[in-house]
Amino acid sequence: MSTPQSLPSDSVGYVEPASVHFDEALSLESGHTLSGYTLAYETYGTLNADRSNAVLVCHALSGDHHAAGYREGERKPGWWEACIGPGKPLDTNRFFVVCSNNIGGCHGSTGPTSINPTTGEAYGADFPMVTVRDWVKTQARLADHLGIETWAAVAGGSLGGMQALQWAIDLPERLAHAIVIAAAPRLSAQNIAFNEVARQAIRSDPAFHEGRYAAAGDQPATGLMLARMLGHITYLSEAAMGAKFGRERRGEPNDYGFHYDVEFEVESYLRHQGQSFVDRFDANTYLLMTKALDYFDPAAATGGDLATALAGAKARFMVTSFTSDWRFPPSASREIVRALLDTNKPVSYAEIRADHGHDAFLMPVPRYRSVFTTYMQRVAAEVGA
Amino acid sequence: MSTPQSLPSDSVGYVEPASVHFDEALSLESGHTLSGYTLAYETYGTLNADRSNAVLVCHALSGDHHAAGYREGERKPGWWEACIGPGKPLDTNRFFVVCSNNIGGCHGSTGPTSINPTTGEAYGADFPMVTVRDWVKTQARLADHLGIETWAAVAGGSLGGMQALQWAIDLPERLAHAIVIAAAPRLSAQNIAFNEVARQAIRSDPAFHEGRYAAAGDQPATGLMLARMLGHITYLSEAAMGAKFGRERRGEPNDYGFHYDVEFEVESYLRHQGQSFVDRFDANTYLLMTKALDYFDPAAATGGDLATALAGAKARFMVTSFTSDWRFPPSASREIVRALLDTNKPVSYAEIRADHGHDAFLMPVPRYRSVFTTYMQRVAAEVGA
Repeated sequence: MSTPQSLPSDSVGYVEPASVHFDEALSLESGHTLSGYTLAYETYGTLNADRSNAVLVCHALSGDHHAAGYREGERKPGWWEACIGPGKPLDTNRFFVVCSNNIGGCHGSTGPTSINPTTGEAYGADFPMVTVRDWVKTQARLADHLGIETWAAVAGGSLGGMQALQWAIDLPERLAHAIVIAAAPRLSAQNIAFNEVARQAIRSDPAFHEGRYAAAGDQPATGLMLARMLGHITYLSEAAMGAKFGRERRGEPNDYGFHYDVEFEVESYLRHQGQSFVDRFDANTYLLMTKALDYFDPAAATGGDLATALAGAKARFMVTSFTSDWRFPPSASREIVRALLDTNKPVSYAEIRADHGHDAFLMPVPRYRSVFTTYMQRVAAEVGA
Repeated sequence: MSTPQSLPSDSVGYVEPASVHFDEALSLESGHTLSGYTLAYETYGTLNADRSNAVLVCHALSGDHHAAGYREGERKPGWWEACIGPGKPLDTNRFFVVCSNNIGGCHGSTGPTSINPTTGEAYGADFPMVTVRDWVKTQARLADHLGIETWAAVAGGSLGGMQALQWAIDLPERLAHAIVIAAAPRLSAQNIAFNEVARQAIRSDPAFHEGRYAAAGDQPATGLMLARMLGHITYLSEAAMGAKFGRERRGEPNDYGFHYDVEFEVESYLRHQGQSFVDRFDANTYLLMTKALDYFDPAAATGGDLATALAGAKARFMVTSFTSDWRFPPSASREIVRALLDTNKPVSYAEIRADHGHDAFLMPVPRYRSVFTTYMQRVAAEVGA
């Protein structure tokens, strides 16, 4: 086992996942019902005596509940290590941070790879579609379970930010702040188009078996790899990709290979990203998550008027975007901000200059950390953390 | 047969393809040799007595020699109908316009679907890689065959514009003007990344059979469809896609289907584009064309200095880009313009405001047509056409 010899001092250190099973049935937006479900989660920091310092972190498309710290035997920390830990924006010396794996996921919460109690076999393609609203419901039950009446903040980037927004709409009394980072009030046609190509790549893979690949002892590895390669292009800005790889090639600088093996460094990167994803992610989950993204549109219920949709929200908002993010660009965040202002909600907005593209929300970008830290210090002071 | 009852008066009307076989061997940049090859081509307008009014049009990734007018029994005109015809920028009342299918293509010129004379079977995966420089060579032989010593202009958009640029570098005496539209001096890492995902989609399709699908009586239809769907996203701007499809859905406006069939209009569009492409295009050709794009980098031979690469050019240049083109953005065209200015070449540059994205070069955008027409009228006057 190769564990890091010493962990960074601003890390929460070694972490263990927890899980809780809920027996109460859950009605989903799709009309289906789950008779019960499990949520896997992690927590960092300590819940204070009056239970006022809890922050819910929501994960994005391919994330899970391992948001910070190190698992025994793993070298890579959680996905939001840049923002969770002692002295970081979500300061674990002050906050009790909770992150759960969304249902439909594949890392411990009930999802397509879980056993369907009515059949005794894995759900696979039979797992119902889930939406951002469904996730908010399940996370509220987790809050109940943990004895948290009101979150000091609900925070997330990308699809995680959409969950924070939905929390503010659906359960306005149960959060004081919504931290919405690199998100959008709804997907654009281009966003949906990329998701559709990814889904087609998975679903047209002969190893997909209409989603029953596990039962067939198979896996749509090729389709999932293609989906992830494509996703990665949209997570990075053109500039970041150019700076990272340019036209760098393997082999002699002035000699083209005239073959289809890896030649340019960016090809190598994408293939590696695609292949390693296949080892850790489930294709049915990927399909579900992309549909949850496509369907997210809280303004649809109010005739497309986001301000009206947000009118009942009581949270204060921090909205953040990154200049080079072309997946959910600043204009999408500004639309959220505008709707909040139109309905007289308190909102802080920061448009961070960063070259990393959409992935910037995962990175230790100094200005981003500084803005986020300042905001959360105010939240901590409010709740006496 | 359903032919249009009456053709638009500014169309070249019904056209018939021609073809010519060259027996002389062709050495390719890859080191391979073709013992001979056929070029399919079309011509529009009339070659004048002193053979001075000929314009070569070069096609892009998925184009062919059918650039204008109508084929008997087809409703759709050639791919550059917006710019070729009586009174259009490439005015067929004045110019003799020639367009050939590139070798490696799949519409009549020698390519993977042609019979390999040494085996008596289709080349398939054995067809050697071809480059932009190789295409220029073959087009020069077509010029010889047609008795054209000097083109009044060589013109193209996207990969076609790259051929125009390469013509100016490789055969400076044989063209008076190079018309380089929506092109780039080389692909970015992001461009290469998209091409790589497209190639992986094709090559990982079990029906690909290592490129010998025709011999196996098969076709990597799924992979080719995915490649085309992905391509289409990059041809349109986000704004154009949003304007065209938005989040429009089939069925009830407030009801999600919670299934994976077509729901959003953009999904329907992409699937249709992908499927119809499979009927008319060869997967091995698609692979070859994307590699030709990736390899294109005329400045590589001069240590990355494009101005030095262009120093020997004698053509005058028209360079055009479109504001919403994110595949080959204006910044890429400006790089070409800067290099031309640095080596004291005459160049006209127009950055056209257009919302269509990369596809704008195929569209009848008024300002684009006006700039292009004005430039070509000057060319026509010079050659007495």
